[in-house]
Amino acid sequence: MSKGLPKRSEDYAQWYNELVKRADLAENSAVRGCMIIKPYGYSIWEKMQRQLDDMFKETGHQNAYFPLFIPKSYLSKEADHVEGFAKECAVVTHYRLKNDENGKGVVVDPDAKLEEELIVRPTSETIIWNTYKNWIQSYRDLPLLVNQWANVVRWEMRTRLFLRTAEFLWQEGHTAHAEKQEAIDETVQMINVYSQFAEEYMALPVIMGLKSESERFAGALETYCIEGLMQDGKALQAGTSHFLGQNFAKAFDVKFAAKDGKLDHVWGTSWGVSTRLIGALIMAHSDDEGLVLPPKLAPIQVVIVPIYKSDEERQNIAEVAEKLKKSLKKKHITVNFDNRDTHKPGFKFAEWELKGVPLRIAIGPRDLENGTVELARRDTKEKQTVNIEGIENVIEETLEAIQSNIYNKAKQFRIDNTHEVDSYEEFKNILESKGGFISAHWDGTTETEEKIKEETKATIRCIPLDAKEESGKCIYTGKPSNKRVLFAKAY
Amino acid sequence: MSKGLPKRSEDYAQWYNELVKRADLAENSAVRGCMIIKPYGYSIWEKMQRQLDDMFKETGHQNAYFPLFIPKSYLSKEADHVEGFAKECAVVTHYRLKNDENGKGVVVDPDAKLEEELIVRPTSETIIWNTYKNWIQSYRDLPLLVNQWANVVRWEMRTRLFLRTAEFLWQEGHTAHAEKQEAIDETVQMINVYSQFAEEYMALPVIMGLKSESERFAGALETYCIEGLMQDGKALQAGTSHFLGQNFAKAFDVKFAAKDGKLDHVWGTSWGVSTRLIGALIMAHSDDEGLVLPPKLAPIQVVIVPIYKSDEERQNIAEVAEKLKKSLKKKHITVNFDNRDTHKPGFKFAEWELKGVPLRIAIGPRDLENGTVELARRDTKEKQTVNIEGIENVIEETLEAIQSNIYNKAKQFRIDNTHEVDSYEEFKNILESKGGFISAHWDGTTETEEKIKEETKATIRCIPLDAKEESGKCIYTGKPSNKRVLFAKAY
Repeated sequence: MSKGLPKRSEDYAQWYNELVKRADLAENSAVRGCMIIKPYGYSIWEKMQRQLDDMFKETGHQNAYFPLFIPKSYLSKEADHVEGFAKECAVVTHYRLKNDENGKGVVVDPDAKLEEELIVRPTSETIIWNTYKNWIQSYRDLPLLVNQWANVVRWEMRTRLFLRTAEFLWQEGHTAHAEKQEAIDETVQMINVYSQFAEEYMALPVIMGLKSESERFAGALETYCIEGLMQDGKALQAGTSHFLGQNFAKAFDVKFAAKDGKLDHVWGTSWGVSTRLIGALIMAHSDDEGLVLPPKLAPIQVVIVPIYKSDEERQNIAEVAEKLKKSLKKKHITVNFDNRDTHKPGFKFAEWELKGVPLRIAIGPRDLENGTVELARRDTKEKQTVNIEGIENVIEETLEAIQSNIYNKAKQFRIDNTHEVDSYEEFKNILESKGGFISAHWDGTTETEEKIKEETKATIRCIPLDAKEESGKCIYTGKPSNKRVLFAKAY
Repeated sequence: MSKGLPKRSEDYAQWYNELVKRADLAENSAVRGCMIIKPYGYSIWEKMQRQLDDMFKETGHQNAYFPLFIPKSYLSKEADHVEGFAKECAVVTHYRLKNDENGKGVVVDPDAKLEEELIVRPTSETIIWNTYKNWIQSYRDLPLLVNQWANVVRWEMRTRLFLRTAEFLWQEGHTAHAEKQEAIDETVQMINVYSQFAEEYMALPVIMGLKSESERFAGALETYCIEGLMQDGKALQAGTSHFLGQNFAKAFDVKFAAKDGKLDHVWGTSWGVSTRLIGALIMAHSDDEGLVLPPKLAPIQVVIVPIYKSDEERQNIAEVAEKLKKSLKKKHITVNFDNRDTHKPGFKFAEWELKGVPLRIAIGPRDLENGTVELARRDTKEKQTVNIEGIENVIEETLEAIQSNIYNKAKQFRIDNTHEVDSYEEFKNILESKGGFISAHWDGTTETEEKIKEETKATIRCIPLDAKEESGKCIYTGKPSNKRVLFAKAY
C-alpha cells in the first residue's frame, strides 16, 4: 500500500491532514467545517469516552441531557459571557420547509418564522443554569454534579479536522455548590482528572495551570487548563475547568436556602474536553509512517498477519492465530487477525503501521515449525522472535512497555523543548528557531500579553500550578514578576 | 412523601406526564418541544445504549459520526423521501450574532446569511449516502455496516415527554450491500435485534411485522417494525428497520464494481430506536404507585432502607448494610444504601416505589437480632423476611423472577387485549369499549386503510410476520383477503 505521507520535517500541517484521512480517522463533509468521524476514528473517541465517563462517575457525577437549542436572549443574560464568547453561532430562524412552487425541491416556508431565534449550543451554561433555577431550592439539593455528552457548534472560519471544527463532540460538566471553596475544589479536582487521563491513557504529558485573564472562559473567575506540546513545538490546550463563582447563578437567579435559612446564590463550575483530544493524540506521538497509538486507547491493540504460500500453510497458520486471538481476548486484549487473501503481507504491514496498531504479530511456516512468532513494536519498530508458548504474558507486558515508552518519549521531548529565557531577544530567537514552551517572567498585565502576542504570535498558555516563587523581571517591560509563566505558539 | 399521582384508570395521559416528572425522569425545557432528560431518566437511556451497542457490535456494526447539518438541497434528492417526510425541520439560515445597536443583547447579523440553508438532521440517510458515494468503489468495500448515536430534530407541534419531542436521542444504522438479498437479511436481522432487546431487557412483548405502504418510511421499499401494547390499550411503535432497495444509492449515485467488473447501484438499509423506548418502558409496566422498572434496565436494582431510632442502631445497621452492598456489587448488582437521616423510612419507601427500584431491603433492630432483613418486591408488592446469610443468591434469583414476571404480565395483558374480529361493527365496538390490538382482514388497499383511520382513528400497526395464511373478507369492503393484519389506536 502506497502511503506517501508527507514528512513531518517537511510539512507538518500537511502530514497531519493526510494522516487523519489516510488512517481512516475522519474527513471533511459537504457541510463547511463539519467533519465526518469515520469508524476507526470514532472507536478512539469511544475508548476515551468510556474511560472519562468512568472517572466522572467515580468522582460522583451523573449524566443528563439538555436541549440542543438555546433561546437567543439567554446568551446575553451573563454580561461577560455574551461579550467574551465568540458570536459565530448557527442560528435557527425557521421551523418548516415547503415544496418550491416551481417544482424545484424545497424552500424555507416564510410563514414558519420563529418568534425568537434559537442558537445551536456553542456551550450549555446558559440553558443549564436556567434549568438549575428549578432544581435548586435548598442546601439539600447541593452539590449538583452533572455531566453531558453532546455535540456543540461554533462557526469557525478556519477549520482543521479534530483540532477546530464547526461541529464537535464533547462532554461538559456543570456543577453547583453551596460553598465557594467546594466549587473551587471541584474545579481543581476535574482538571486533575483530565491531567490523569491525558498522562495515563493518552500517554500525553501535560502542564496544569491557570489561564491569564485574557484567555479565561467568558463568564469564569478562573480557568484551569492542561497544555500539551506537539511535535512541531506548538502547544495544544487539551482540557479546561472553570470556576464560575456566582456569575451564572446571579444571571439566572439561582438561589438556595442555607441550613440557617439564609438565601444565597449558588457557586458554579464547568469543565470540558472534546474530540480535539484525538488531534492531540495524533500530533503528540505519530511519525512519518503513520499513527502511533498508546495501547490503552488503540481500537486494535494487536494485529496478527499470516505469511503463507499454499492454502495448507494458510490453514495451519489460521488455526494457531485463532487460538492465540482467543487467549488474548480472555486478557481483554483487542486483536485483529488479518486473514485477507486479497492483500500481501507487506501491504498489510504498511496498513497497520499507518493505523498505529501498537503490536504486530507475523506468523509464517517456519514459525509454525519452531513454535515461534515474530513480534514487532509500532513505537520502536523493534522486532523479536518469541516462543508462542506463554506469549500472552509477553504481549501484555510489551503493551505496557509501549504505553510507558510513548509517554516517556513525549515527556523527554517536552523537557528538551522547554526553555527558560530572561530577555525578549532570547524569547524571540528561541520561538523562531526552536519553538516549544518558553518559561519567562511577565508583569501580569493584559497589555503586555497582547503586545507579545501581536509581535510574536506566542500566547501565555498557562501559569503553571507548580510554578516556583521566584523574583524576576518581565521580559517585555522589565517590571517585577514573582513567577514564570509558559508561553508558546498554540493550536 | 406525597406522590399524589393521578390514577391510570382516571386519567392515563395525566398519570404518565406526572409520573415522568415526579420520578425525575425528564421535564420540558424553555425551548418549545425540547425535553431535558434528568440524571435518573438518562441513566435508563445509558443502560439501553450499552446493551443495544453491544448487540450492534456483535452483529458486525461499527459506530461513526456524521454532521448535524444537512444542506437543504440534499433532502430533495430522493423523491419519495422529500415527499413523504415531514417538512417540519429546524432551519439554520445565519451563522453569526452581533451586539444590538440599541444595547439590548444580541441580534442576528443580517450580513451572515448562509448561501444555502442548513437543516438540522431529522434523520441522516441523505448526508450519509452522500458520504458513502466516496467510501464505496468495489464489492471489497461492502458490506458497509455503520451505526450512529445522535440527536435529531423534528419540529413536532404536539409533544409529549419521551414519546414525541422536537429533539430526541436515537441511534440510526445505515448499511450498504452488494446483494439485494443480503440487504433484506440485514433489515430482518436488525428488527430481530430490536425485538430481542425489547423482550429480554425491556420486558416488553412485541409483535414483529411489516408496515402497510402508507405507514412505510419515506424512501423505503419495505419497513419492518416492532409494536408493543400499552396499558391504556394503545399501541406504540418501538423500533423500525427499513429496506431501502437502491433508492438512496440511485439518488446519490453510489455504485460499486462487482467481481465481474460490472457497475451496479448499492442496496441499502436503515434502522433506528430512540429515547421513545423510555416512554414505552414506563407505559407498559408502571402502576398508580409509580414506575415499575425491569431489573435489567433499572439504574438502581436494590435499595437498602435502614429503620432505626437511636444513633447506635443506625450505626449497627449501616455496618450490615455496607457489607451487603459490597457483596452485591461483586455480583454486579447496583445497590443504593439510603442512609439519609433527613427523611423517615415511610418517605423513603414511597420515593423508591415511585422511582421503580425493583427490590427494597429494609433492616431494623429486630432484624439485626434475628439475622434477617425484609425483602419487598416492587412488581408484586410482596414482602418476605429472609435470612441475611446467603441473601445474595436470593436477591439475584428474585431480580430474575421480577424480570420474568413483568414480562409475563405484559404478555398476558396483550393476549387479553388482542381480539379477532370479522365485521366492521364488531371492530368499532371493541375499539371503543376495550381498545387493544384488533386482528382483522383487510383488502390491502390504502383507500380502505385511510377510511378506517378517518372513521375510527385506528391504523394498521403491522402485518405480523407470523400471520397465518387464512382466507377471509375485508371488514370494510368485503373484498377477499388472505391474512389478518393488526389494527390499533397508536401513540
